[in-house]
Amino acid sequence: MHSDISAADTHAADLQTLNVELGERSYPIFIGKNLLSRAELLLPYIRGKQVLIVTNTTIAPLYLEQLKSTLGRLQVDEIIIPDGEQYKTLATMELIYDKLMSARHNRKTTLIALGGGVVGDMTGFAAATYQRGVDFIQIPTTLLSQVDSSVGGKTGVNHPLGKNMIGAFYQPRCVLADTTVLQTLTDRELAAGIAEVIKYGLIIDKPFYAWLLENTAALYRRDQAALIYAVYQSCANKAKVVAADEREETDHRALLNLGHTFGHAIETAQGYGQWLHGEAVATGMQLAAQLSQQLGYISQQEILQLRQLLQQANLPVVPPQDMTASQFVDLMGRDKKVIDSRLRLVLLRQIGEAFVAADVTAQQVADFLIQQGLAPH
Amino acid sequence: MHSDISAADTHAADLQTLNVELGERSYPIFIGKNLLSRAELLLPYIRGKQVLIVTNTTIAPLYLEQLKSTLGRLQVDEIIIPDGEQYKTLATMELIYDKLMSARHNRKTTLIALGGGVVGDMTGFAAATYQRGVDFIQIPTTLLSQVDSSVGGKTGVNHPLGKNMIGAFYQPRCVLADTTVLQTLTDRELAAGIAEVIKYGLIIDKPFYAWLLENTAALYRRDQAALIYAVYQSCANKAKVVAADEREETDHRALLNLGHTFGHAIETAQGYGQWLHGEAVATGMQLAAQLSQQLGYISQQEILQLRQLLQQANLPVVPPQDMTASQFVDLMGRDKKVIDSRLRLVLLRQIGEAFVAADVTAQQVADFLIQQGLAPH
Repeated sequence: MHSDISAADTHAADLQTLNVELGERSYPIFIGKNLLSRAELLLPYIRGKQVLIVTNTTIAPLYLEQLKSTLGRLQVDEIIIPDGEQYKTLATMELIYDKLMSARHNRKTTLIALGGGVVGDMTGFAAATYQRGVDFIQIPTTLLSQVDSSVGGKTGVNHPLGKNMIGAFYQPRCVLADTTVLQTLTDRELAAGIAEVIKYGLIIDKPFYAWLLENTAALYRRDQAALIYAVYQSCANKAKVVAADEREETDHRALLNLGHTFGHAIETAQGYGQWLHGEAVATGMQLAAQLSQQLGYISQQEILQLRQLLQQANLPVVPPQDMTASQFVDLMGRDKKVIDSRLRLVLLRQIGEAFVAADVTAQQVADFLIQQGLAPH
Repeated sequence: MHSDISAADTHAADLQTLNVELGERSYPIFIGKNLLSRAELLLPYIRGKQVLIVTNTTIAPLYLEQLKSTLGRLQVDEIIIPDGEQYKTLATMELIYDKLMSARHNRKTTLIALGGGVVGDMTGFAAATYQRGVDFIQIPTTLLSQVDSSVGGKTGVNHPLGKNMIGAFYQPRCVLADTTVLQTLTDRELAAGIAEVIKYGLIIDKPFYAWLLENTAALYRRDQAALIYAVYQSCANKAKVVAADEREETDHRALLNLGHTFGHAIETAQGYGQWLHGEAVATGMQLAAQLSQQLGYISQQEILQLRQLLQQANLPVVPPQDMTASQFVDLMGRDKKVIDSRLRLVLLRQIGEAFVAADVTAQQVADFLIQQGLAPH
């Protein structure tokens, strides 16, 4: 069992700390086991006497009381929102604002997101906009949110016509990524997180990708050392990309969108919440890799290797067969990464090196999707 | 007629430019006559090919077509919202987002606020949050918004339990303060703006206050040279305060709230839209001045002088008599300037010098209000 996590062994410990360097908005990510109980990590980042914990109906019964007892004698209020991407809306934001107002939270309050990406994105946006900005702390409880939402400062909600269309860039004061809580994740949600972990290997870190070829099985059976290593490595890679382009002003940060333009089309077509984000990204990465191969970048063997890797975590690798190529392209075109009507896609020059292709036409993508078995219209 | 605007004569010209210095977020305020038609001022600040003009039902029939023809061949979309503070809500924000999405505005779009403070605050907040931040330009059409919203970067909407509780700090790319459009303002709205102009004299600029003692009548009859001077001077004073405290992290920026804590209580009690913001601020300033006098700072004569000055513009100087002292204090306590339950008020040490008093108790304020004729409960 140890042989397949040797790289993790080198790095594993009960607590890893990664500092995300963003000048005066720098913050630490604490990664490790049983962090929810460690008041000494959390309390130094709370400046006032008020805290609002935002969590959801799935997480609250599991971890809310534990967190509240860690917070001790502060004024701790809570709001429990329904679980699911379909609730990542302005309507839910209003519930958070209502709670803050009715409990009279002042400008020194701290919002704590206890949950997955949906809870994190909304809590961050609420913190960015309540009284024009208050503190917030992320405690991501899914693997996806630990590796994705911990770094980057993206907060916001969906619009009926597109994902994440309303939001702000806003950094947390600190992040607690407790790998112990991943024990209660469903296999399907864990796999969705593994998809994003694999993404970091694909776009920027070939050695990590090589480690994943050996250790994805260990991640999938929730080996703690492997999880700590994978979360650390993913966050470090994301931080590297984000530090170069905090507000998405160049192409660089777009690399993080590998698989996402295809993925968003799938999520939108199926309605939010049917496919998990990570599942859509997995299929999106597989499509992006195949298109990269067609354009002469990566090899057929690497395509198959990626497919096997994704399937080790039971991730989907083909798009929903009830989608048509033209619907797909239309939904990709509504994605915000389209600038001045030109389609921009993240592709793979090689494993471990992604790039932004700005010259792929909608027609090319449609033809490619038809080859993948989708009906034209 | 000229004798009472001599100071304005010195500065007046068809176009004044004030640069608000905020590092990489610096921007110019253009102040002058007939600016709506001057494409050469506006177009350099529009980076993409798309523009959304946000305006209201009062302003649209007067100035929308003029602005559209100035913008020429860009993709110019428009949204016309109902006029009034009661529409400064998340529900109205959704209409703006809906328009941006359905017209497929991309991340290079520019939002233009054509209207008063409500339009400016919401358009700024929409720009701050659409796709996590796009450009925006302010074209304030009321005197109040020209002197208040042009500087400071405050954007947002009201919550049913408090004004401006949801928002962001976000700077425009430029501001066009066209004094010609003030011709179509009602006297009441003009006066509301004059209240804020007087505020700048009171808090930080005694010479300007002296000028106002001579020239408020000229402002009230819409003398263009006097208006240009007053807008310039007000914005310059506000910029001076804001530059020292862009994100309201010290007490300094709080000076701008002279009259606002009292004023917000009046607005909230009466329901948004009954008293104009500037009217509530006028009464609030008068109350703050009287409290300052009671505490031994300014003289009884200066109180009377201020009252006369406000009355020159037909501004109200006594609170609504149907409010009780305890209701008043309760509503002041719900204001966001309260930190850790301590009441903070901006008072006058002397004319032209405001300060933040953190030690006034709710009981003191209640007693003071009872002396002003309000019932205790």
